[in-house]
Amino acid sequence: MGIKEIYDFIDDNQQTYVEWLKEFCAIPSVAAQNRGMEESVDYLREVFQKKLNTDLEVITTKGFPLLYTKLSGTSDKTLSFYNHYDVQPEDPIDLWESPPFEPTIREGKLFARGVADNKGNLIARIAAVHAIKSVIGEFPLDIKFLVEGEEEIGSINLNDFSDYHKDKIEADACLWEFGYRDMNHNLQLTLGVKGMLYVELLIEGANTDLHSANASIIENPAWRLIKALNLLKNEQEKILIPGFYEDIITPSQKEKELLMKYHLDENDMLNYLELDSFINDLRGNDLKHKHLYEPTCNICGIESGYTGAGAKTVLPSKASAKLDFRLVPGQNPEKILGELREYFDDNGFPDIKIESYSKEKAARTSPNDKVVSAAINSIKKVTNQTPNIVPNTPGTGPMHKLCQKHNIPAISFGVGHFSSNNHAPNENIFLEDFIEGIKIICTLLYEYKNA
Amino acid sequence: MGIKEIYDFIDDNQQTYVEWLKEFCAIPSVAAQNRGMEESVDYLREVFQKKLNTDLEVITTKGFPLLYTKLSGTSDKTLSFYNHYDVQPEDPIDLWESPPFEPTIREGKLFARGVADNKGNLIARIAAVHAIKSVIGEFPLDIKFLVEGEEEIGSINLNDFSDYHKDKIEADACLWEFGYRDMNHNLQLTLGVKGMLYVELLIEGANTDLHSANASIIENPAWRLIKALNLLKNEQEKILIPGFYEDIITPSQKEKELLMKYHLDENDMLNYLELDSFINDLRGNDLKHKHLYEPTCNICGIESGYTGAGAKTVLPSKASAKLDFRLVPGQNPEKILGELREYFDDNGFPDIKIESYSKEKAARTSPNDKVVSAAINSIKKVTNQTPNIVPNTPGTGPMHKLCQKHNIPAISFGVGHFSSNNHAPNENIFLEDFIEGIKIICTLLYEYKNA
Repeated sequence: MGIKEIYDFIDDNQQTYVEWLKEFCAIPSVAAQNRGMEESVDYLREVFQKKLNTDLEVITTKGFPLLYTKLSGTSDKTLSFYNHYDVQPEDPIDLWESPPFEPTIREGKLFARGVADNKGNLIARIAAVHAIKSVIGEFPLDIKFLVEGEEEIGSINLNDFSDYHKDKIEADACLWEFGYRDMNHNLQLTLGVKGMLYVELLIEGANTDLHSANASIIENPAWRLIKALNLLKNEQEKILIPGFYEDIITPSQKEKELLMKYHLDENDMLNYLELDSFINDLRGNDLKHKHLYEPTCNICGIESGYTGAGAKTVLPSKASAKLDFRLVPGQNPEKILGELREYFDDNGFPDIKIESYSKEKAARTSPNDKVVSAAINSIKKVTNQTPNIVPNTPGTGPMHKLCQKHNIPAISFGVGHFSSNNHAPNENIFLEDFIEGIKIICTLLYEYKNA
Repeated sequence: MGIKEIYDFIDDNQQTYVEWLKEFCAIPSVAAQNRGMEESVDYLREVFQKKLNTDLEVITTKGFPLLYTKLSGTSDKTLSFYNHYDVQPEDPIDLWESPPFEPTIREGKLFARGVADNKGNLIARIAAVHAIKSVIGEFPLDIKFLVEGEEEIGSINLNDFSDYHKDKIEADACLWEFGYRDMNHNLQLTLGVKGMLYVELLIEGANTDLHSANASIIENPAWRLIKALNLLKNEQEKILIPGFYEDIITPSQKEKELLMKYHLDENDMLNYLELDSFINDLRGNDLKHKHLYEPTCNICGIESGYTGAGAKTVLPSKASAKLDFRLVPGQNPEKILGELREYFDDNGFPDIKIESYSKEKAARTSPNDKVVSAAINSIKKVTNQTPNIVPNTPGTGPMHKLCQKHNIPAISFGVGHFSSNNHAPNENIFLEDFIEGIKIICTLLYEYKNA
């Protein structure tokens, strides 16, 4: 019995694995709103118990529990899987073509909140382990599952966990939670993530909303918020907070070379999003550099006053904005938070309240690590394509606190695709990618054993 | 029988009149959301039929109907009452201490959406007519009621009405719909209103919300909205749209004198709103000038992306803002709308969509008109105080299209007070002011007859 038999088994069990995924996606596990979290834990415990015959350890935290298990294999190498069972909120709900928590198949895709980010990946890994167990009966190496419930709200308790449960984290390499195909349907293999600082700004004015006739003499907090936000970034996209750029580690020569090779489907991306251009008309290596190696300052949300239908003439009593800064290696979110506070203080906005939700440092794995070549080989074997190597994804995850801090190389690939709409309405994956994804995981376990 | 007997009758019937007001305020007549509008019309028809023994004419428009009736008196003078039966939306609902459409009495005040703006005034006028009818049996002059249902959404069909129903509009003077006491509880007598241009701006980006990791290369419409709004006003509160100020008619000497006399309770207002200062630290005549004689550019609402609880890392696909410009005599909202469009076009924002909801010109009545002295006398007689004359309220109404265009002098006073919270949560009036308000209307009918 070998990898061919495992692939056949996976093909024969496609419907079963899709069914597991649909069941899992039907649970609205929105951590930000504390919905469906217990139910998700119960569901996963049952799957691990019934399908893999192993108990998931439920590790309590100050927030939502972490789930852990280890399956022993026939070599002394360890590969860990990091995933999360929480998902992003589903709004704006009216833009979904089918209900976000009623997984629906249309044109070969499965639509559901969380199916790409990252329930599809977790179920694919569970299915891979299930297939090997069913066909071979033993694993080529030790496998650890680590599944948290707070990734979408900034993995706020993962730091504590990584300090107090080093035994559970220890591994020779870690397969990270996410992964997408590019516009050519070429699988992306990611070696790092950006960091993040997520803040909410609040400006308050009078103690009540007022008739807008008073706008002549009473200051409007929405106007002040506009002025404050306008301080943060200039027309050339430069972030204006003093000190913001000073700790950035310049990409190495090898990383610059990877950037040149990295394929970004510029025109397809623009067509898909119905846009004429990228920011500042960037193209080519400049665009790729900005995308992968430069930090951002993004408005995730802004709100003040009356936003319903029609006209209401009101002077709002408060205005707020949610911002995320995506950070690159070297930048320290804690330090930048302090710099942001000081910047507002120094520019006439000492009254702005800043609440921070999430602080992550960026992380990068060396392209020379053995797990990278094992992954490249596995992906080639299953898809017949060389993966599109992303030296540093523009996205964020707690890879620093869980891996880089402990010198564990981490890589990421998965079952999503460019138009998976993660964090947005109509999130989806191709069912075909999901099945291929299961096969790649199986292959990686053997490739990495021998690497 | 004379005015003393009418006052006694009003005192004896206080509870009845408050009951009428509560019934009317229980109807959620939110024009912006098309709620409770028919019910309001039915209610008023019944009140006019049963209490004043007169039929209200229901005049259909392209929107909500106008209500009209004329009660003939013993002289050939005519005083018209302009009111509206629609109210502002009640949100933010969670800040109301009692439900907005369950009128509730607390500490001598009646709380309900619309009680100050302006159901209290309409019912006071109906009650005044009822009291004179009951005590005297005939009216000192002709009285017209004109009650529209679209004041809070910009009186969009009043222009047509004022062109096609001049007979119904004709009057020697018009008592306008609103009125408030100042912080000294001194009744304000208003001789004019500002105009308005209300617009909604919309900027669209990609065709879907995206994961905010894409903020490095995909333009964020919220950022563009910030930049566009920032073009509109400078730190000195100057509105930067070219041509915005050029048609303004400078206040006359008499109007400047009235401004000097006008009492604005600066410190009380700041204390009440828990603020340290007015815009740009203005005080005294500069503050009053800005409040009454200068136009505004106010953000009524702004919205983009995720505004729920916690963190969501999203790159929004659109951003919108609602703005109201309060205009002063001479300014033409239609012209300013064109200037706004051109200004955005010329500054890199040709893609901003501008929808206009409301366009009103400002209006002012001469302080020398007979109805002004009649009103001053009536207010003095009932309240023992000289009214605080407001030559031009910072608020807006269709006074131009209904009165100034037809050379009808218009004045306004009513039963609200400074902290009536019109357009805001916990809208309220003092019941005592309501009863005094009924008496002042009765007095005015006789004073104006003899003026």
